[in-house]
Amino acid sequence: MSVTVGLIGGRGQMGRWFKRFFEGQGLEVLVADLDTPQTSQEVARAADVVIISVPIPQVKRVVKEVAPLLRPDAALMDLTSVKQSPMRAMLAHFAGEVVGTHPLFGPGEESIAGRTVVLCPGRGERWFNWLKTLLQDAGARVKVTTAAQHDRIMAVVQGLAHFVLIALGKSISQLKVDPRDLEDFATPTFATLHQLARHLFKQDPTLYACIQLQNPANRVALRALEDAVADILYFIQRQNADGLVRFIEDVKQGFVADEIE
Amino acid sequence: MSVTVGLIGGRGQMGRWFKRFFEGQGLEVLVADLDTPQTSQEVARAADVVIISVPIPQVKRVVKEVAPLLRPDAALMDLTSVKQSPMRAMLAHFAGEVVGTHPLFGPGEESIAGRTVVLCPGRGERWFNWLKTLLQDAGARVKVTTAAQHDRIMAVVQGLAHFVLIALGKSISQLKVDPRDLEDFATPTFATLHQLARHLFKQDPTLYACIQLQNPANRVALRALEDAVADILYFIQRQNADGLVRFIEDVKQGFVADEIE
Repeated sequence: MSVTVGLIGGRGQMGRWFKRFFEGQGLEVLVADLDTPQTSQEVARAADVVIISVPIPQVKRVVKEVAPLLRPDAALMDLTSVKQSPMRAMLAHFAGEVVGTHPLFGPGEESIAGRTVVLCPGRGERWFNWLKTLLQDAGARVKVTTAAQHDRIMAVVQGLAHFVLIALGKSISQLKVDPRDLEDFATPTFATLHQLARHLFKQDPTLYACIQLQNPANRVALRALEDAVADILYFIQRQNADGLVRFIEDVKQGFVADEIE
Repeated sequence: MSVTVGLIGGRGQMGRWFKRFFEGQGLEVLVADLDTPQTSQEVARAADVVIISVPIPQVKRVVKEVAPLLRPDAALMDLTSVKQSPMRAMLAHFAGEVVGTHPLFGPGEESIAGRTVVLCPGRGERWFNWLKTLLQDAGARVKVTTAAQHDRIMAVVQGLAHFVLIALGKSISQLKVDPRDLEDFATPTFATLHQLARHLFKQDPTLYACIQLQNPANRVALRALEDAVADILYFIQRQNADGLVRFIEDVKQGFVADEIE
């Protein structure tokens, strides 16, 4: 079976990454973006698998635009970091097979081997199984889940994680500590944390803003974080060491209980 | 020169670590703790270098107790994670040489090689130089600074870093996400962050509570973090993507400016 993959938004970082990946798998890849000779309409008509690789806020508009052009036996997929709203849009505007996809890695990765890709079944099994096999054969870890469960987990894995790294970066830049001092006096923990924060700030800020704003599950997660910050500050402001120790011990029960020997 | 090191509080984790370290350097080490045959008074009288290795809240009391017993040509040192208040206590209660010491690593490290130790000169040069040379010859990176500057940098390196990891741990345990899902759906960034948080929660909570409460520079640092959290939430609650993108871009200027190619 010779499969043609169409990447709409294929000049973005993840679009380019997956162009190389699919071509490495021996597939023909058509790319449409603002500045490509082929339009998204042409690619949508020609491809067996049409993958929407545009920033989250544009997914709905692009899906509406291209979905009516797809062949009925084609598949519509996306690469977006949230899954509920893009999948709603794809399922609403296209009657054929739909797969929601979220690669859990950035465009800096050399290879897909050992990296995780989340697949959310939308409609149909043929193209879902094709993609799953293709990814697994290339060494990826494939996790299958629902869009709602994906978003709930990602509110922690991306929402909370990015939030604390952005807040840490902002605090450090606010405090005007000499970056050389931070390196010279780093503990192993801080060195790693600092590295994660700097890595985040070198990526596209639009992606991080979108991840914060567009995942509906973030609201609950961020409320938990807000509460945690307030709780810790409460003990510090009252110089209540025993209270803070008990607080940390309580968290420990739920957080590392399964690992405690 | 045959040097005898006295560790007061030598049965704690860092005390035991430094007992092994000094013995590995061929020095005689005397240890006093609640359950040792030798008392802290005996060790204080006998040692050339007396190192206070007790939890931060007990430093002042222990210093007051043992300082009058030290030989005038001995040195008084500590291993505490904050430096201003322990050094004030040591300088006030002992007229001889004083060195403030903060090893920037935990008791899980195999070796001192490549690890950082902060030294704050208190009074005198002889024992300061002895310790500095000993640590450097063993492969440690020695950073020399004042107690005030140490505490200001550590408010970021320890205060802020631990705070965000404790808040993250609390939020995750509050949200009751299955730990297996967090592992299965981890991005490389989250996997590292999660590992740092779990490492923290496996250590002694008293140390982390003390670091939050006893460093006077933490107040300013935590206010900066509180403000950063409020700023980010402001944009999220208003679904203001452009505002959040600009916020991240502004931080980036101050935070990774020196590294941008």
